[in-house]
Amino acid sequence: MSVIHGEMQSYALTVDKLLDHGAKWHPQAEVVTAREGGRLDRIGYAGLRQRSRRTSAVLAGLGIGAGDRVATLAWNTQAHVEVWFAVMGMGAVCHTLNPRLSEAQLADMIAKSGARVLIAAADLAPLARRIAARAGSVGRLLSIDGPAAEGGGPLAAEPLESLVDAAQGEVPWGDFDEHAPCGLCFTSGTTGTPKGVTYTHRGIFLHTLRALQADTMALSTHDSVLLAVPMFHANGWGVPFATPAVGARLILPGRHLDGASLAALINAESVTVALGVATVWLALAEHLEAAGGETPTLKRIIVGGAPISPVLMERIERRLGASVQTSWGMTEMSPTGTVAPPDDPRRAAHLSGRPSIGVDLLLTDAEGVLLPEQRGVEGHLRARGASTIQRYFGETRPAVDASGWFATGDLARIEPDGNLVITGRAKDLIKSGGEWINPAEIEEIIGELPDVSLAAVIGREHPKWGERPVLLVKMRDGSTASDAVLIDALRGRVASWWLPDSVIRVDRMPLAATGKIDKMRLRAEFGRATETRACRQTQHPAQ
Amino acid sequence: MSVIHGEMQSYALTVDKLLDHGAKWHPQAEVVTAREGGRLDRIGYAGLRQRSRRTSAVLAGLGIGAGDRVATLAWNTQAHVEVWFAVMGMGAVCHTLNPRLSEAQLADMIAKSGARVLIAAADLAPLARRIAARAGSVGRLLSIDGPAAEGGGPLAAEPLESLVDAAQGEVPWGDFDEHAPCGLCFTSGTTGTPKGVTYTHRGIFLHTLRALQADTMALSTHDSVLLAVPMFHANGWGVPFATPAVGARLILPGRHLDGASLAALINAESVTVALGVATVWLALAEHLEAAGGETPTLKRIIVGGAPISPVLMERIERRLGASVQTSWGMTEMSPTGTVAPPDDPRRAAHLSGRPSIGVDLLLTDAEGVLLPEQRGVEGHLRARGASTIQRYFGETRPAVDASGWFATGDLARIEPDGNLVITGRAKDLIKSGGEWINPAEIEEIIGELPDVSLAAVIGREHPKWGERPVLLVKMRDGSTASDAVLIDALRGRVASWWLPDSVIRVDRMPLAATGKIDKMRLRAEFGRATETRACRQTQHPAQ
Repeated sequence: MSVIHGEMQSYALTVDKLLDHGAKWHPQAEVVTAREGGRLDRIGYAGLRQRSRRTSAVLAGLGIGAGDRVATLAWNTQAHVEVWFAVMGMGAVCHTLNPRLSEAQLADMIAKSGARVLIAAADLAPLARRIAARAGSVGRLLSIDGPAAEGGGPLAAEPLESLVDAAQGEVPWGDFDEHAPCGLCFTSGTTGTPKGVTYTHRGIFLHTLRALQADTMALSTHDSVLLAVPMFHANGWGVPFATPAVGARLILPGRHLDGASLAALINAESVTVALGVATVWLALAEHLEAAGGETPTLKRIIVGGAPISPVLMERIERRLGASVQTSWGMTEMSPTGTVAPPDDPRRAAHLSGRPSIGVDLLLTDAEGVLLPEQRGVEGHLRARGASTIQRYFGETRPAVDASGWFATGDLARIEPDGNLVITGRAKDLIKSGGEWINPAEIEEIIGELPDVSLAAVIGREHPKWGERPVLLVKMRDGSTASDAVLIDALRGRVASWWLPDSVIRVDRMPLAATGKIDKMRLRAEFGRATETRACRQTQHPAQ
Repeated sequence: MSVIHGEMQSYALTVDKLLDHGAKWHPQAEVVTAREGGRLDRIGYAGLRQRSRRTSAVLAGLGIGAGDRVATLAWNTQAHVEVWFAVMGMGAVCHTLNPRLSEAQLADMIAKSGARVLIAAADLAPLARRIAARAGSVGRLLSIDGPAAEGGGPLAAEPLESLVDAAQGEVPWGDFDEHAPCGLCFTSGTTGTPKGVTYTHRGIFLHTLRALQADTMALSTHDSVLLAVPMFHANGWGVPFATPAVGARLILPGRHLDGASLAALINAESVTVALGVATVWLALAEHLEAAGGETPTLKRIIVGGAPISPVLMERIERRLGASVQTSWGMTEMSPTGTVAPPDDPRRAAHLSGRPSIGVDLLLTDAEGVLLPEQRGVEGHLRARGASTIQRYFGETRPAVDASGWFATGDLARIEPDGNLVITGRAKDLIKSGGEWINPAEIEEIIGELPDVSLAAVIGREHPKWGERPVLLVKMRDGSTASDAVLIDALRGRVASWWLPDSVIRVDRMPLAATGKIDKMRLRAEFGRATETRACRQTQHPAQ
């Protein structure tokens, strides 16, 4: 048709509108930040927007314009949220950095993004100086959340707060193409070389509309939402965008995600919904078990980032008195892929929920060929959608296959009712004597044992079989179960050659900054061949 | 920035994806249609999609292509839903017609849209033939939902069903620009000359994402949703798009919206959420009051289309045992503007809820100048958003002001907490002796009286004052209240010169096809000057 007979309004889906909406329609709804020493700072969305707009003016004064990258190395605080909207609203790109990565990794990421301004939490200023010195591109260091710590290099840290106070003029927000980039996040590096994911305004806006749905995160103006997912971890699951869009209160824990801090914050702010990886809620449950106390206002906990064991899910639900919603996502998906609906009577730890409209999934074989049967069988998971990656930052070739699907690297099954079951990471698979072993299946069975707190299985080099599985466990306090009990739990449920060669007990399971078990570190520490054990067997257990 | 460093996938927001999603992820979730005689037909979204795709093939065979208009004159049935997606999925435009408009109006609308194919419910075939004969453009008449009734003209009605059975080939769905038009609906004509509103794929898709939010319609995969809003009335409030997108069951009442039919359907299909204008739920409550019975599965009723009185809201809530959600919208907004959240403890009949992200509102004076104070004062309501009209069908000048805002024609107040209060229709205002009288305020007070079922105030021509208000009431059965009691209820609450000159009791309040009180008809019937009464007063009551 050559003539369009009538039309709807143009309305670019840009993230500045999310905060504009919160400020206009929910001006008093608060963003609360936990400070050192138990102090709580609070501001309404109207006030936060005003400060954020002034922050844009500061950045413009430093020469930042549309498309320029501004890096942040910061915790979950009001100031960090203000910076996000300041950078994105003016059309620049907010590059979030994970402070728990190595200096070399961080410097490499900044060098790749070419950020000229780095905004760091006060306590991270020394780290910021060191990585700025290595990266080269950074000309200005701004500090937020207190007086910048000294050390790490000569770069002066100017307090952003005082620049905001003195800010002059107005910088327009929005009014650019909704496909413009607004964020940059490198994958965490637990599974290989970090790659940059460029978020777009449109992708984030549509992700926000999904997060607010009754069958997903179901955030409401009546909710107080605790974000225990670091904002540098895949957009904090999009929560800093979703809360102003609906006028929910946003409760930010700062840098402290330990059980005692979270328990205090949940009760001080009557938190109704909390989001974070399972290990954070395990720590909270363990704190309450040890120290006593309840979290009566908490209704729902949305977990993601890694599969949760049924025992852990039941323990969290019982101790916290809240219903767990499982989810699955990836940095490359902005990040949520699936979420189980709130209070689903059929909820279960192994189910990650169904995709909501705007996300599509399918299963292929290892070569990317569509499986003829899509329900009830395991396959390699591929994803499509408006908030799913097309191309990594700085790369020329697409990150999708010829049909436009992104290979997630996850192994999954889709139940007949459409529920997603993540069965493992393709990269975590252990190849032993030419046969595949899936650590996730072993971890799930071990995770069901009441004596076990956390379990991880990795491949250890083996001169004959290539790799052999090793089980690492953190036992619950007071448990007396022997190694044999653990291994016996697997017998009859996995193939005999899947049985781990050894059990290693750890006092503390190494976690990545995202709260996931850090398998890269486990592999580095426990993955090398050990001659004596390797020589005990002369025949592959699979034979 | 000249180079975009990485990107998200392209993913056009087109409505075919809504049904694709339902068919893939909720294939068994049912669409249920009430037939004559109490029979219920049912089909899953996968089956419905398959039939809808075949319907596209039929239409392509009749020469329909992208941008072409296909008109429907039909009730809420599965076949009508199939036609919607068939037409829109292939890029054509579905022009819905309201069978209760006059033949002249309908013929004029078809002549304007230029539809070449008309799809009509079997019982509406004679009307379809008559309007087709007047309009000229229609070459083919297809009938759905049974054998076409005879009469009305020579045009043969071919049963779409048999064409679908014989359909060959595939017509691609989607794969066009998301700004493409998909629907056409003329405003109902209760307030003036009908104008065509062109819906776009993008506008509808974003509207759907809003409808699914926890704080709006909150439709869930666990819901059975009764659509008692005609599909020809402003997209059936978008419900036929929202239900497949989330896998909710869609319960369609056909043509019968009387209390007995709805009560039976709600109980047969365990309906949890029902949508419709207040008068429909009044009829249901009256039926239950007279005949007995309960609707135990019903949790929520979403009302809209016209303000509801507090007495009526309370009566509906008490008798149906469901919580009422008020809403406000317009055909020009695709159509929902605001919705009160589910089970809001602060819900009240006069509050229409807050806009969700993607809808923005402001208040101006009669000339369109922004009011300096936007909260707590009455003004003329203007709207903006991705699903709000820019330009009417066939017109060249925009329907928005210089700043891009659409003047809704409603008078409204916005409460300090952001809640919208519709205070009247600018077009319904009565000008008496140079002063404005707002009928909505009088109707609200009269509507609170327990003896009153429905109330409407219109202006009657007056030789001296221009217009004077007249009150029309439908009393509840058995009520004995005199006219004086009604007028006395207004004393002290409105200005003395607002008191209606007369009270007219009606046995049946005329309703437009949408269920709203048909003020146009009331004005035609009762709005002309009556000499005797007009001469009784020599001084304007305002003096």
